[in-house]
Amino acid sequence: MPKRRALSVALIGTKFMGRAHSNAWRQAPRFFDLPADIRMAAICGRDRAGTSRAAKILGWEKAVIDWKAIIADPLIDIVDICTPNDSHAEIAIDSGKIGHRIYHFRARYAQDWIADENFPLVWRLQSKVAGSGALGDIGAHIIDLARFLVGEIAVVSAVSETFVKRRLTKNRQPARVDVDDAVSVIGKFRNAAILNLEATRFARGRKNQLTFEINGSRGSLVFDLEDMNRLRFYDATDSEHTRGFRDIIVTESSHPYVGNWWPPGHIIGYEHSFVHTIADFVKAVVARKRVQPDFADGLRTQRVLAVIQRARPVSSL
Amino acid sequence: MPKRRALSVALIGTKFMGRAHSNAWRQAPRFFDLPADIRMAAICGRDRAGTSRAAKILGWEKAVIDWKAIIADPLIDIVDICTPNDSHAEIAIDSGKIGHRIYHFRARYAQDWIADENFPLVWRLQSKVAGSGALGDIGAHIIDLARFLVGEIAVVSAVSETFVKRRLTKNRQPARVDVDDAVSVIGKFRNAAILNLEATRFARGRKNQLTFEINGSRGSLVFDLEDMNRLRFYDATDSEHTRGFRDIIVTESSHPYVGNWWPPGHIIGYEHSFVHTIADFVKAVVARKRVQPDFADGLRTQRVLAVIQRARPVSSL
Amino acid sequence: MPKRRALSVALIGTKFMGRAHSNAWRQAPRFFDLPADIRMAAICGRDRAGTSRAAKILGWEKAVIDWKAIIADPLIDIVDICTPNDSHAEIAIDSGKIGHRIYHFRARYAQDWIADENFPLVWRLQSKVAGSGALGDIGAHIIDLARFLVGEIAVVSAVSETFVKRRLTKNRQPARVDVDDAVSVIGKFRNAAILNLEATRFARGRKNQLTFEINGSRGSLVFDLEDMNRLRFYDATDSEHTRGFRDIIVTESSHPYVGNWWPPGHIIGYEHSFVHTIADFVKAVVARKRVQPDFADGLRTQRVLAVIQRARPVSSL
Amino acid sequence: MPKRRALSVALIGTKFMGRAHSNAWRQAPRFFDLPADIRMAAICGRDRAGTSRAAKILGWEKAVIDWKAIIADPLIDIVDICTPNDSHAEIAIDSGKIGHRIYHFRARYAQDWIADENFPLVWRLQSKVAGSGALGDIGAHIIDLARFLVGEIAVVSAVSETFVKRRLTKNRQPARVDVDDAVSVIGKFRNAAILNLEATRFARGRKNQLTFEINGSRGSLVFDLEDMNRLRFYDATDSEHTRGFRDIIVTESSHPYVGNWWPPGHIIGYEHSFVHTIADFVKAVVARKRVQPDFADGLRTQRVLAVIQRARPVSSL
Repeated sequence: MPKRRALSVALIGTKFMGRAHSNAWRQAPRFFDLPADIRMAAICGRDRAGTSRAAKILGWEKAVIDWKAIIADPLIDIVDICTPNDSHAEIAIDSGKIGHRIYHFRARYAQDWIADENFPLVWRLQSKVAGSGALGDIGAHIIDLARFLVGEIAVVSAVSETFVKRRLTKNRQPARVDVDDAVSVIGKFRNAAILNLEATRFARGRKNQLTFEINGSRGSLVFDLEDMNRLRFYDATDSEHTRGFRDIIVTESSHPYVGNWWPPGHIIGYEHSFVHTIADFVKAVVARKRVQPDFADGLRTQRVLAVIQRARPVSSL
Repeated sequence: MPKRRALSVALIGTKFMGRAHSNAWRQAPRFFDLPADIRMAAICGRDRAGTSRAAKILGWEKAVIDWKAIIADPLIDIVDICTPNDSHAEIAIDSGKIGHRIYHFRARYAQDWIADENFPLVWRLQSKVAGSGALGDIGAHIIDLARFLVGEIAVVSAVSETFVKRRLTKNRQPARVDVDDAVSVIGKFRNAAILNLEATRFARGRKNQLTFEINGSRGSLVFDLEDMNRLRFYDATDSEHTRGFRDIIVTESSHPYVGNWWPPGHIIGYEHSFVHTIADFVKAVVARKRVQPDFADGLRTQRVLAVIQRARPVSSL
Repeated sequence: MPKRRALSVALIGTKFMGRAHSNAWRQAPRFFDLPADIRMAAICGRDRAGTSRAAKILGWEKAVIDWKAIIADPLIDIVDICTPNDSHAEIAIDSGKIGHRIYHFRARYAQDWIADENFPLVWRLQSKVAGSGALGDIGAHIIDLARFLVGEIAVVSAVSETFVKRRLTKNRQPARVDVDDAVSVIGKFRNAAILNLEATRFARGRKNQLTFEINGSRGSLVFDLEDMNRLRFYDATDSEHTRGFRDIIVTESSHPYVGNWWPPGHIIGYEHSFVHTIADFVKAVVARKRVQPDFADGLRTQRVLAVIQRARPVSSL
Repeated sequence: MPKRRALSVALIGTKFMGRAHSNAWRQAPRFFDLPADIRMAAICGRDRAGTSRAAKILGWEKAVIDWKAIIADPLIDIVDICTPNDSHAEIAIDSGKIGHRIYHFRARYAQDWIADENFPLVWRLQSKVAGSGALGDIGAHIIDLARFLVGEIAVVSAVSETFVKRRLTKNRQPARVDVDDAVSVIGKFRNAAILNLEATRFARGRKNQLTFEINGSRGSLVFDLEDMNRLRFYDATDSEHTRGFRDIIVTESSHPYVGNWWPPGHIIGYEHSFVHTIADFVKAVVARKRVQPDFADGLRTQRVLAVIQRARPVSSL
């Protein structure tokens, strides 16, 4: 019997995403039949005590505080740079169920955690650390989605705003907010579909609403991450008498990924998409297949972000 | 006892809007205590037979086919130019329930009646008759709404597209479609709120979806004309433990207009908003108060439409 | 040309249902091509002044306060005893779209207008006037629906309760409430389907929720009167990959009745179902066809109500 | 430093619930600050190969096929008999947010996995193995809920049915189905609230719909397990103008349990409720507090099931 391959993983980051990715590495082998064993070798953070605690709680063999040591370590096979995948694309775009022409793609990533003007000036609100505000933090995800689901973007126009221009630092000193609180974007894809995007942290009541709607020549699809176990699908080829948006609970064994979890109607949560990404990633690495999204995807998305950041509306009334 | 005033009304139009307005003139005195009697004096159409039939079915005293005769008639008090009002504004904007600063206004008017590429080239798809496509036909309504609910618009950028560029006329001759099938608009209001509008006839499954969401400093409001008896309201001042969008059935006697119809939970339909408009209009005429929206409102909305029609996105990738 | 027939109608009742039926008689000829002219001849109420006012506002030729005069009048063709019809049955049961076997019928008519214990003792809460409480007032409607959509009922068991046993009269005298506040019923239809009904005026937040769900061998149907322009339909013969409850906006011209009103997506309201009933009724009268529901239907529903009123649960714990 | 306590756990079962509980034991220490270390010592199944595979995949130290060995093992602290807890009770009942009197409790557990008459006769459809059908398998959960949320049940009446009376075994032999396919129950709690329960495997389109609605004197609560991150709450003390069911996403840090997972709006899934149960259980064991539900709870629920199984409707029409 050939010896089964083992992959040694190191993770950089111990906070929100660090916890989500740790969970994904730990859970993936429990629910997916992976072609290699996973060794959670090292986690890398900024301070020794916190990183050691994270290693213990999150299940990593050792704690490291110098990321260069990880890159240099020949025993590490994978340094975790995974990003979430979308579990619904397979339904939408491969099967042509909404038609072969796409007319509209609109997406919105809306949160409200800084809508209170008394919320302090955290690092995400400073351009020297975060680069941009809502655009880069959450807008980047829907640009990824747009490119993944529809194709490359040809032209854009954008408007952005910093609604609360001064906030108190944690030391209660007033300081300027120099990133965008919200951005709204229109444009066209190369295939002539119309693009409409919005990223905001100022939509009261929206906690983590990543929603999109695609209208194609034969149907439409609607998704919302806050209700991620459902996909709404309109099939224009249904009879006029009985057609309407179908509220599909995507937990059947025929749906992608979820057959590895629970019976139909038993829903999954936010972190499961990370497990799916790890499972896909490990399979691709072992099979020496191309992994997507790759660095080139990241670069193209960054270019779109850069163009949006410079774009301004031109017509005054 | 003073003699009660009578208002003689003439209506121009016998089709969709003609039927809706006729119904409104007929129903308003049955459900609202109007300060004048309504006399449905004349309806004006294009051909004698059709207009006579309309007069009988829709309840007008006489049928006229020359609109100049109506304008010249000294016995006619009102020539019907009413447009729908919105029954929810009173909740939103006067009471400041969503806060005194508005951050986002987004609206979408989406239909799908020409999404089939075999749908014929009707008059609404010809610029010499219709002026523009989705923009003027349905986009105008959400620009009205934007101005009514938030204020004047300062700057815009737009993208539009004609997805199906050639269609067959009713005589089955191929011809060019020279109006927009869809338009997407971003911009800013004078008060710095971000504007995001979309009008389309190519959204499969959306029959008459006029939906808007407003995010203010203290809450949010969501409305959809397809579900027009409800208003969704998020109050950020509710306790964190129990706050969420409230699904308000706006049929309580304290809600505007509906107390004149049925008990709570007994919903009203599309044409009722026309009845409300007529009721408001008659009261304003008799009281010699200013009627809103007036011609100046119409002109301002037309200006926004004209600017949008010329606007183009500027940043290519 | 043969002279067109005229039908003279008299209506008994001037309040809620009187207004709804008056509206229906007035509107039916405007939106439906009826085979006879309608003459709204007389309305009958209890006091002269109120009935005269009702006649004027609601559009009846004369006001009458002795209902025997109406019954005796040979010029009256119709005395209004209409009750609402259901506009969705045609989709459900004739086409067999949910399969030829019905497994479950459950319905709930829920309101909350007397849930406040300080609400006064109105006539609907006194058995000598109202007969029963929630059971007869609103439960009767869902028993009608059950019989219309599924068939005759074979056996039932019921539980009822008067939650607030004493209330103040309008003169602020304490008095006993001797009708049911709520009733819950289970049973079986003759065809072995399980029945589950509930009528209550104590469901906070439910204003006029008449909702039902039918589960058949090939699909399910869900309806809610508060959202009466939609019908939710699950087709078990759809592919597993894309099946889900369809949210059908029943405003297409192919749907029953609504083609006479407005284009798709322009919704109708509560009173429209009365207009539909009148239109059906007039057509049946002129064609000398059987009208349904008829007196026999009323009697059968009354029998079910009587049995439910006496039924008691038997198994104590 | 005192040595931290370790708890050795053994789990009986390797299939659906075995996987869900294994996951819970594995995840609980990663997301909750437990007062003891967890040692996943042994898993017990029926055949050696399958149990060994389960031990490896699910993360147990050893595989056992004799459950008596586990019971007898003095090194095992806990034999897993946990059942899911409900994460929403804390909101509902302790705070009195829906009022101190409960009027209605209705719940429905609906699935459709055997609605196809060609589905084979699996063990769950045989009374000698399963005891009962929908009643014991899924109805038991909503009786638990009823008792947990409202209190003890005083009296019931029930109707049940086996819709498909003969099915093929896996060897394609016809055989009789001798358990219930569905059961509908009404009754009263000791506190006079009305009970309405339903458990069915014949509701097409319902995959795992465990839904309940409670109506109290001051408000209502609605929950659905298929949409388990939301709780709908109606507060009758809100102003008439703006009240409506609140759609609460229960992922704020102030909500029970979820603060240990992700930021607001990042939802959790089915198996997380098992993790919560384990976390509560371990804390109670270490603190030597009473664990709920306990054996007495199980016994009381079994008594209700037994009474329902014998109950029959009494009133024929």
